[in-house]
Amino acid sequence: MVFKKITLIGQSTESFDAAADDAIDRAEETLDNVHWITVEEFGVEVASVEGREYQAEVEVAFELED
Amino acid sequence: MVFKKITLIGQSTESFDAAADDAIDRAEETLDNVHWITVEEFGVEVASVEGREYQAEVEVAFELED
Amino acid sequence: MVFKKITLIGQSTESFDAAADDAIDRAEETLDNVHWITVEEFGVEVASVEGREYQAEVEVAFELED
Amino acid sequence: MVFKKITLIGQSTESFDAAADDAIDRAEETLDNVHWITVEEFGVEVASVEGREYQAEVEVAFELED
Amino acid sequence: MVFKKITLIGQSTESFDAAADDAIDRAEETLDNVHWITVEEFGVEVASVEGREYQAEVEVAFELED
Amino acid sequence: MVFKKITLIGQSTESFDAAADDAIDRAEETLDNVHWITVEEFGVEVASVEGREYQAEVEVAFELED
Amino acid sequence: MVFKKITLIGQSTESFDAAADDAIDRAEETLDNVHWITVEEFGVEVASVEGREYQAEVEVAFELED
Amino acid sequence: MVFKKITLIGQSTESFDAAADDAIDRAEETLDNVHWITVEEFGVEVASVEGREYQAEVEVAFELED
Amino acid sequence: MVFKKITLIGQSTESFDAAADDAIDRAEETLDNVHWITVEEFGVEVASVEGREYQAEVEVAFELED
Amino acid sequence: MVFKKITLIGQSTESFDAAADDAIDRAEETLDNVHWITVEEFGVEVASVEGREYQAEVEVAFELED
Amino acid sequence: MVFKKITLIGQSTESFDAAADDAIDRAEETLDNVHWITVEEFGVEVASVEGREYQAEVEVAFELED
Amino acid sequence: MVFKKITLIGQSTESFDAAADDAIDRAEETLDNVHWITVEEFGVEVASVEGREYQAEVEVAFELED
Repeated sequence: MVFKKITLIGQSTESFDAAADDAIDRAEETLDNVHWITVEEFGVEVASVEGREYQAEVEVAFELED
Repeated sequence: MVFKKITLIGQSTESFDAAADDAIDRAEETLDNVHWITVEEFGVEVASVEGREYQAEVEVAFELED
Repeated sequence: MVFKKITLIGQSTESFDAAADDAIDRAEETLDNVHWITVEEFGVEVASVEGREYQAEVEVAFELED
Repeated sequence: MVFKKITLIGQSTESFDAAADDAIDRAEETLDNVHWITVEEFGVEVASVEGREYQAEVEVAFELED
Repeated sequence: MVFKKITLIGQSTESFDAAADDAIDRAEETLDNVHWITVEEFGVEVASVEGREYQAEVEVAFELED
Repeated sequence: MVFKKITLIGQSTESFDAAADDAIDRAEETLDNVHWITVEEFGVEVASVEGREYQAEVEVAFELED
Repeated sequence: MVFKKITLIGQSTESFDAAADDAIDRAEETLDNVHWITVEEFGVEVASVEGREYQAEVEVAFELED
Repeated sequence: MVFKKITLIGQSTESFDAAADDAIDRAEETLDNVHWITVEEFGVEVASVEGREYQAEVEVAFELED
Repeated sequence: MVFKKITLIGQSTESFDAAADDAIDRAEETLDNVHWITVEEFGVEVASVEGREYQAEVEVAFELED
Repeated sequence: MVFKKITLIGQSTESFDAAADDAIDRAEETLDNVHWITVEEFGVEVASVEGREYQAEVEVAFELED
Repeated sequence: MVFKKITLIGQSTESFDAAADDAIDRAEETLDNVHWITVEEFGVEVASVEGREYQAEVEVAFELED
Repeated sequence: MVFKKITLIGQSTESFDAAADDAIDRAEETLDNVHWITVEEFGVEVASVEGREYQAEVEVAFELED
């Protein structure tokens, strides 16, 4: 069993939690075996959006198929 | 007045805030003088649980009794 | 276009998100061109407050006027 | 000549060396031009396995084809 | 909108700038929506090449398609 | 003699050197006693600009007046 | 379920693997629910011992009882 | 011989040296085999005390009894 | 209550403690509500001064007025 | 008693332990008073060698003679 | 084959590339087998020089003779 | 003008300042052009000495002769 980790940045207009969920949701759309994620960085984009956009950069660990 | 710091990992099915609170709650059950905590890492466990489990690794600083 | 970054610590009795928002709100009161923020550290103050005070140390990037 | 780096976690019930080899083996099954790896973290899983499972998180650098 | 980040190492016999450009060029050949890169490390290979080879390890952030 | 350090992000369409110079130039417009700078991060903005915009985040140390 | 992490330094005259095992063994003598460990640092003591003493500083995560 | 490391924060109204000594003194009151300490962070508390309070966060390594 | 952090470098021909105090003294001349400082780096300048000049780079946290 | 630290990279076709030993062996050939080493990085070279070459970058601390 | 790494700071009035080259040039004057360098820090000296002096702190890896 | 940096560990039974001075003194005995030092780590040895031995690991930067 070998794991691979990829880095995704999820976004949400609501909260950091939702931004992390956004990245996990995206990972699970295309990967069958997501095991865990770790948060690398939280940020908020202000200038280029209306309101505020919470961002979560996460590392997603998933199991590689044999 | 000397402080000691210990490392706890709290969990919640709801949010990162609740996961941090979970660790603080546990610390306050057995320690009288918790002063502050700092977040060391946020993560989410996906594979071994139903739904998602938010995790907060925190350092808890408390005052040692004389 | 040159950006400057300053470090603020916002607080909230509710959540880490609200603590980060607190710092951004304060930045926007006195600065016209806040572009983005990054979270440097989350913590919770317990001893010197009633209840818990969530804290977010953030770096705020804003555009300097010419 | 451009290199790409990916992050894998190999495992072994024997040693950290074997866990790193496990990740390199997996990389070489699907990639022709693995050049080098660096170890990012060693760990040991205890609770969810029989005995102990040594783990090596490694960055694998390989040459991209033109 | 979710971003993914990958790690590339570009090379140039001229300068660090050109090495970073080399990695960006390669990313843009196969990816439609490269947004930004950050430099992770600069180095120079001396022994295995004629002259000197400037190297730039960069993280490339691009937007995933829906 | 006390120094203060501030963080600026300079930009250039040419090179990392020019991006760092851009930040130093801006600092010297308003500060009399810039002593040295250190580079904190190099990056390149691709999506929101024509061509590429090299960016240098630098810490600028200057002497405070008595 | 809350985890606690403690830091131990194990030793071995044989290898880094055995030094890590030494720390895990010690943890399991007094703790019922060791889940995983991560290696913080490997070193070798030379001067104050005969031969060489491999050392592994590890963080041991275990589940706190309710 | 296995070592354990704990984190203490000592304080002094005099100096950083005395703050580190304060933490070591406290460790030696309850532990028989303190071997060495490393300084993790120095700080000074200003607002909540009269004068200034120097603080030293240290990791204390001591030998576990068999 | 929002805090701001600034970075100062204090100096002293006597000691690291005095260099940190030098930076705090300077901060308190112009700021009413300095709460705490953390030491970022200690250094000693040798070549450009007579004797030795101890230097302390510190982050100063102060409360912003409403 | 003053120590000096130097950085060596040892190699082995067998294991990380042997690669660290390789560096220590080399240090002891020319230095009388090697006290301890710490591992800075483990890696494996794959492309330019037959089989695999384990590498250990270590810091070697030795006592300077009076 | 054992490598040793040393730390040099090169300088140039032109660019960061030239500052790194300056350090490599110096290394090659006295060492036969320089293999590669990595950049540890870029900075610019402003106050004590005319114009600006670009500085590159680099780690130089070279092969030790048998 | 090229600088070289070496790493020394000075010691003192009195204070961290004196331990840093000890390393600088040693450097100046054999090197003509010491320019500055930075502190990498402070520690205290307790078990193998009478009393306490303050230790300062410092990087010493000196100018190489042409």
